[in-house]
Order: sequence, then C-alpha cells, then structure tokens
Amino acid sequence: MLDSVDVFIFDCDGVIWKGDSLIPGVPEVLEKLRAAGKKIFFVTNNSTKSRKGYKAKFDSLGLNVNPEEIFSSSFAAAAYLEQTKFKETGKKVYIIGERGIQEELDLINVPWTGFALPHDEDVGAVIVGFDRYINYYKIQYAQLCINENPGCQFIVTNLDAVTHLTDAQEWAGNGSMAGAIKGCTGKEPTVVGKPSPLMIDYIADKYKIDRSRICMVGDRLDTDIVFGNSNGCVSCLTLSGVTTEEKYLSANNKIKANYYVDSIADFF
Amino acid sequence: MLDSVDVFIFDCDGVIWKGDSLIPGVPEVLEKLRAAGKKIFFVTNNSTKSRKGYKAKFDSLGLNVNPEEIFSSSFAAAAYLEQTKFKETGKKVYIIGERGIQEELDLINVPWTGFALPHDEDVGAVIVGFDRYINYYKIQYAQLCINENPGCQFIVTNLDAVTHLTDAQEWAGNGSMAGAIKGCTGKEPTVVGKPSPLMIDYIADKYKIDRSRICMVGDRLDTDIVFGNSNGCVSCLTLSGVTTEEKYLSANNKIKANYYVDSIADFF
Repeated sequence: MLDSVDVFIFDCDGVIWKGDSLIPGVPEVLEKLRAAGKKIFFVTNNSTKSRKGYKAKFDSLGLNVNPEEIFSSSFAAAAYLEQTKFKETGKKVYIIGERGIQEELDLINVPWTGFALPHDEDVGAVIVGFDRYINYYKIQYAQLCINENPGCQFIVTNLDAVTHLTDAQEWAGNGSMAGAIKGCTGKEPTVVGKPSPLMIDYIADKYKIDRSRICMVGDRLDTDIVFGNSNGCVSCLTLSGVTTEEKYLSANNKIKANYYVDSIADFF
Repeated sequence: MLDSVDVFIFDCDGVIWKGDSLIPGVPEVLEKLRAAGKKIFFVTNNSTKSRKGYKAKFDSLGLNVNPEEIFSSSFAAAAYLEQTKFKETGKKVYIIGERGIQEELDLINVPWTGFALPHDEDVGAVIVGFDRYINYYKIQYAQLCINENPGCQFIVTNLDAVTHLTDAQEWAGNGSMAGAIKGCTGKEPTVVGKPSPLMIDYIADKYKIDRSRICMVGDRLDTDIVFGNSNGCVSCLTLSGVTTEEKYLSANNKIKANYYVDSIADFF
C-alpha cells in the first residue's frame, strides 16, 4: 500500500488516540511516513476545538503536528466560507457551537455573534456545530435568521448522531443540534465535515494531488470508509477504534475497505 | 354542509382564537351547533397545556367547553399510551416538554420523570413535546434511553416547524425538539398529534361515528386540510387564520378543502 499512496488522511479518535490516550506505536509510524516523503493530514468532525486547540492536544500527547495538517470541522466551516467568498458580502455569522468555530472565524476575519438581540438582518450564515449549551434561544435565533434573512446560509459541521466525549458512554452528537434547526426550518444544511467531499476537494486542489493516491484511514465503516470510497480514494480500516474484525468480516457488513490493519502501527 | 356533518373538529389557533383574542361570532356559532345536536371537538398541537389547562383558557375567553371535547397533543400522547397498554409494562416515561404532558400522564397514573440521574433503565418511553427549556442534558438523556433501553418508544406530540407563541413572529416549534432527538438517534418517532390519524381514529371508535360525517375545520392547508382530506373526513378551510383567500385560490395551491368560509361565524 505504501508505494501507491502519497497522502494519508487520518481520522483521529480511534486511530491516533482513544479519549486522552495515544494509541501505541503511533508516533513512530508518523515519523516513518514523514521520512518516506508522505504528506499526512488529521481530520476530525469534532468542532469544539479550532486547529490551534487540536495542536495543543497533539502537543500534550507528544505528537509533533503542524496546524496546516489538521482538518477539524470547525476549520472546514471557515474554509467553506472562504471558498464561497462570504467575507465579500459584508455579513456576519450566527454560531451555534463552541470555541473552535469562533476561533477559526476570527482567523479569517469574518464577524460572528452568538448572543445577538434583537433579530439581526445582517446575519448571512448560520453555522451549527456541537454545542453543549444548546437552548431554545439559540434554536429560535437560528430559525429566524434562516427563515427571514434573504439568502441566509445554513451550514453544519457534521451530522454525526453520537460522539465520544468520554469512553464511558455515547453522547448525543451534532446530529441533534443540526436536527433541531432542520426541524424548525424544514431546510437541508450544507455539511462541511465528513462525509462531505469538501475537505478532500480542498486537499486535492491545494496540493495538486491525484485522489487515487490519497488514503483515508479510519475506524468507522459508515463514515470514514464510505467517505474514502465515495471520493475516489484508497481506504484503510483500522481495528483500533469502534469496529471489530468480527463485525468487519461478517456477512452483514457490506462496506469494504481496500485494506485493514489492527492499528496503524502495522504500517511498518 | 351542516346537514351532512354530525361532528365538527375545530383547530383552535386561527379558528377559535388568535393569540389571546376570541374570533368574533364564535360563541354564538358553537351554541347553535350544539343546539342543532352536533358534536364538537377542539384540537391543538400545542402540548404545553393539558386539557385542564386548555379548559382554563376556554373559560377565560367565556367559552363553555367540556374537557372531553379538548384534544391537545399532550392528551393525545397519554391516549396513545393507554391504547398501547403502556401502564402494564410497569415502566416510566421520560418527558421532554412542559406541564401539559406531565399533567396528562398524572391523570392516567403513568409515572414520569424529567430530572433522572443516572441513566434509568426503567424508562420505557420518551415523549417529546414543545419545550422552551430544552438543553443538552435532556437531549443526551433521551438519546441514552432510546438507544440503550430495549424496546424504549420514541413518541412526539407533533412535528410542527413553527408555532405562534405571540402574534409578532414565528417561533421554533416542536419540530426542533423532535429533530434534535431524531438527529442523535437516527430513529423516526411515533407522532400522536396532527397530522397523525390517531385522534380521528380515537373519536370515530369511541363515539361510533362514520368518518365521512366528521368535518375538520382549520386555517392551515398543509396541516388541517390535508389532515381532514387524508382521513376520509369533510374538510373546511377558514380564512380567519394564516391562509388568505388569494393564496387559497391561486394556481400554485394544490390543496383544496370541501368548503371554505371567511370565519366559522359564517356557518349560520
């Protein structure tokens, strides 16, 4: 596999780390991939941190990663606004979400608000990310902007049903925040994180890379592997996260990766 | 029309009242319908009040209405639990919603909770109604019960995108609370309010009435009139609410009622 791939896109949770623990052998593998001239990117649908916030997490785990290598869905939302030249509209963004999205919009100098009163007709986009402080005020405010402001965009970082805030249990994910706004507007959002192709488009365009030489590495069949397969990339399942070998090989599973490994430590 | 109909089902907001004001002529019409031997029912998707709560609202407007004539979606949720013999399971209900649902479950002696900690495996149904105090805790708790408790039901009072808390603007409706729970569970709920047929089934069964002699009277084409038409009832649009005559008669509108009136005051 290594010879046929120039770029590796790694999902983070279940691939690089589990909760707050690094998966054994990961630092050495990343080192060897870099030494072999491979480009590597890290992708996460968790929008609560910005790239800067994730850089701090990588640092704390002893991993030396460049902010440009990190694609959080908070960054994806900002990158989407840049691609669509949102800044030129002179409008602002209403955010349902946490610090990650706020920090990424600050970096591209797009004004945002999370506390507006009364209804602000200058809001040209609503971005909805995971928000542990979701409440009726935020839902109603997003509804007013999307339904009443002409041309107001409805952007969500992802539609993941559940997320892993702790190892103990599954937690309601951004599917619930996005679902709340879908439910009161009847509108379908633009999704910028996985499995939207936006990020792979961005990497392929920016670095002039052939998609067939990009490998998507993840631990979830219905998100990561589908994401790789449907974007013309090589896909690699790692069993270090939520998918067991038994589940992967069972007759019920129709989603197949090009490769599968126990952990990315098996790359070398 | 009056001769061919035995039962009138009235939507409330925009038909009987607008916000806190009675629509002129309504008390006299209701009086005359009763005198002519017609059965009348009042139906609302607003679940924040119980039938007792609505009785108080009718009283305050000077309308003499029997609690058995009121079908709020909070009552519909309780009636659904009764029909499906929920009490015999010995389980309890987790409620996202306001006082209306709580009071209706108290009346049928079904235990409920809105404040449980930790995860209670004894929750056998989650009922989701309009809730101005929606928050992440409630979303996560509902998700845990629906995803982790075997056989746990997911019931919503309605899926209305917006509601009219005030005349000033449209407010995010129960579509947002229901959407949040759909979004983190990936499950489709059982809907007990309009446009679910449960209420018409209940009335037709309980009072042994032929559906073709029930008239659904409402001000919304895509909910009330569709609701009447799709359940084999007579339908009557009233222009006293959100639908104008111009909109109703325009070529773009494909939803037709059997009758239409300026206001139910025109019945006589």
